[in-house]
This record gives sequence, structure tokens and C-alpha cells, in this order.
Amino acid sequence: MNASTEPPIEITAFSWVPDFAKGYVRCLRPRWALEEIGLPYRTRLFHAAEPRPADYFLEQPFGQVPAYREGDLHMFESGAILLHIGEKDERLLPRNPQRRARSMSWLLAAFNSVEPSVMELVSVNLFNANEDWAPLRRPSAMDAARAKLSRVADSLGDREWLEDRFTVADIAMVTVLRGLDHTELLSEFPSLVAYRARGEERPAFARAYRSQLSDFDTGSGQSMEKTAAGGGAS
Amino acid sequence: MNASTEPPIEITAFSWVPDFAKGYVRCLRPRWALEEIGLPYRTRLFHAAEPRPADYFLEQPFGQVPAYREGDLHMFESGAILLHIGEKDERLLPRNPQRRARSMSWLLAAFNSVEPSVMELVSVNLFNANEDWAPLRRPSAMDAARAKLSRVADSLGDREWLEDRFTVADIAMVTVLRGLDHTELLSEFPSLVAYRARGEERPAFARAYRSQLSDFDTGSGQSMEKTAAGGGAS
Repeated sequence: MNASTEPPIEITAFSWVPDFAKGYVRCLRPRWALEEIGLPYRTRLFHAAEPRPADYFLEQPFGQVPAYREGDLHMFESGAILLHIGEKDERLLPRNPQRRARSMSWLLAAFNSVEPSVMELVSVNLFNANEDWAPLRRPSAMDAARAKLSRVADSLGDREWLEDRFTVADIAMVTVLRGLDHTELLSEFPSLVAYRARGEERPAFARAYRSQLSDFDTGSGQSMEKTAAGGGAS
Repeated sequence: MNASTEPPIEITAFSWVPDFAKGYVRCLRPRWALEEIGLPYRTRLFHAAEPRPADYFLEQPFGQVPAYREGDLHMFESGAILLHIGEKDERLLPRNPQRRARSMSWLLAAFNSVEPSVMELVSVNLFNANEDWAPLRRPSAMDAARAKLSRVADSLGDREWLEDRFTVADIAMVTVLRGLDHTELLSEFPSLVAYRARGEERPAFARAYRSQLSDFDTGSGQSMEKTAAGGGAS
């Protein structure tokens, strides 16, 4: 792998976000997965507070990041991108049918059963904190998220990862749990605090995190391209 | 295919739900996918208002339906189950890498970008309608869902399906859009009304819908097993 060669994989990310979002943008997910298997990638950057170019909605129907390109292959949604990257390497997605099926199940659980309750708390506490309904909605939103976390903690038990080893489902779940950092909720579940810490202690997470932050240092220009550090993993 | 043979595929479903949930339980998704490709299945039924058996949480960490068994393979989350069934048959999930990637993207978009805003409306309008915060939260929840629908409608354009032909992503999106039936919101997007109708007009949808309803007629017994009509599709 030659670092001077333009990487064939590109993800979209942000050159600027509000401070509270730094380190939490969803492009962290494909960055982390790619770092786990040592695949280099480049980023194409947008300013989060400026409108996306009109043609970006052809790549990402909601105008969000990340979108993903790999040669002629274009896709979107961090969950789908994680599955796609996972299919490249059994370290991320087991080949054994039952283990693969469980990893897919947990990945979808992170995105459809857990993250919606996390995002409702983000909505109440960050994006709509000054709305009259926010303080009234908060207790039930906390209860809903707590109920989901309780089930995840019970399922995790004393295992290190959701299944018998690390997979893309853990990238999904750890990044979902990080969305609770503006609350104290996760601290009610020590096993989930430890689980999330195990994820963040992985060298690939640290590289992905730093690479997201470093893209914020590149200024506010739109549609800048930058070759990221992914290749350094190999 | 011999209808008297016990089908190897089993999904969990409900023998009873409140009236407003009839025809909307998420087991509709694997039923529909299995009907599209003519695979028979049986159902194992729970009463929605009674606690699940403790060992069910080993199969489905949140106690929800559907869970899925196929011989020794056990999985959960309707999105993951749709992908698994899709991998059996290219009528549901294209083999072409780009088309497959786009179908996976749209499936995840249905579950992570669209359904959370639909479920927040369900929360406001159905599950928490009598809470003091519900009427205050409703306008912003409507706006959030409307914004997502607007992007889906723009992406759909004048195509019949999300991509160039029907895939599991359409099963995902149509069933997500049906979650808005307690509101008038979808009627603001005539192309989405027509899209959803195209989905419901498929014979496999009709069989899946009838099979869900027929399970509610079997009484209130817990953990009943029933062989469903899937075999009739072939």
C-alpha cells in the first residue's frame, strides 16, 4: 500500500461543526471501520452550517454525512457503509452465518432500537433546549432511553463485546452510546461505561477520532478534499 | 414444496395487539419479504400485553417481535432480517455491487433516517397523547417528519421504487411510511402516497397483511405455533 497513491475510498465529512458536535459526527463510523482493517481513504469536506451543493443530494438524499464512494460504487447511511466495509474483512463481520447474522442484528439494533431514543434526548437537550416542551418531554425521553440501555446491558452481560468478539456492531453501538455524553444516563450502567471505554481504547478508534478532529482544522472551505490517515494503520 | 412439511423458517409475532396496531406490527416486514420469494414460514405467537418469557430476551434483547429462526440460525431486528432474507434471492436484493449497496443504503435510511421521526409522531399522538408535553411537541415532530418525507419524495422522483426496481429497501420504506397512518402527513406528498399504494398492491404484501391479521384470530394463548401461508406463494 503506497501512501502517495490516491486512496480509492472517499467519505464525506465536515470541515466545520459546532463545538458540541466535534468528535461525534457520524463520519466517525466509517473512519473507525476503515482504520480497523488498515484501508486508506480520503475525505471530501463540507461546512456543516452552509447548504450542501444541490448535486450532493443525489449521493446522500438527506444531505447528511457520511456518504461513501469506492471507485464506481456510491452509497450512504453510516449503518449501510459499516456493513459494506464489514463485508471486506472478517475481522469486522464474521463469515460464519450465525455470527454474521447476530452482528447484523446488533448493528440494526444500534441504529433502530437504541439510537432513536438517544437522538430524542439530543433533540430535547441540545437542539430544542429552549423550547417550551423540552423540559416537559425530558423525563419520558430519559425513561425511554434508560429502558433501551437496560436491555443492552443485560444482553452484554460480562462479555467484552456484543457478541463473542469485536465486530462492526460494536462500532455502531459504541458510537450510538457516545451520543449520550451530554447526559449522565450512561453512568447508570457501569458495564456499558466500560464497554464504551473498551471501544474508545482501540487504536483504530483513536486514529479515526483524531482524523475527524484534524479535518476541522482545515478551514471552512467547501468541498475540500483531503487524504486521511487510514493508510497508517497497515 | 409440501405444505404439510414443517417450514424451517420461524418468525415471532403477536396473537393479540391493541386495535390500532393491527396490520402494523413489524413482523409484517419478514412476512412480506418471505411471501415475495415464496418461502413458507411458521409463526410463534406472544400476547403483546403480557410479559415475554424470560428466555425470549436471549433471542430478542428488547423483547420485541419479530425474531427469526432458520434451523440453527437465530437473529433479530426486522431490518437485519430483511437483509438476511434479501441475500437469499436477487429479486429482493440485487447481486450487482452498486445496486446492492444502494438497496442497503435505502434500507438503513428507512430505519435510521426516516423511521425515528415517524416513531416520535407515534409517541406523541398515540402512546403519550394525554401527556402535557404531547401537544407542545407535536408541531416540531411534524416538521421533522415532514422534512424527511420531503427528501424521500425528491429522491423517489417519478420512479416506481427507491431504485430502479423493487427491493427489500421498499419493504422497509413502505412499512415505515405506513406508520404515519394516524396522521394526514403523507397526503402532503402525493408521490409517496402512490409509492406506498404500489407497495400495498403487491400480492405478497396482501398475503403478508392477511397472515398477520389471521394470527390475531388464534386467541390469546402464549407461545402458540402456527404454520403460516407463505407456501401459497409458490
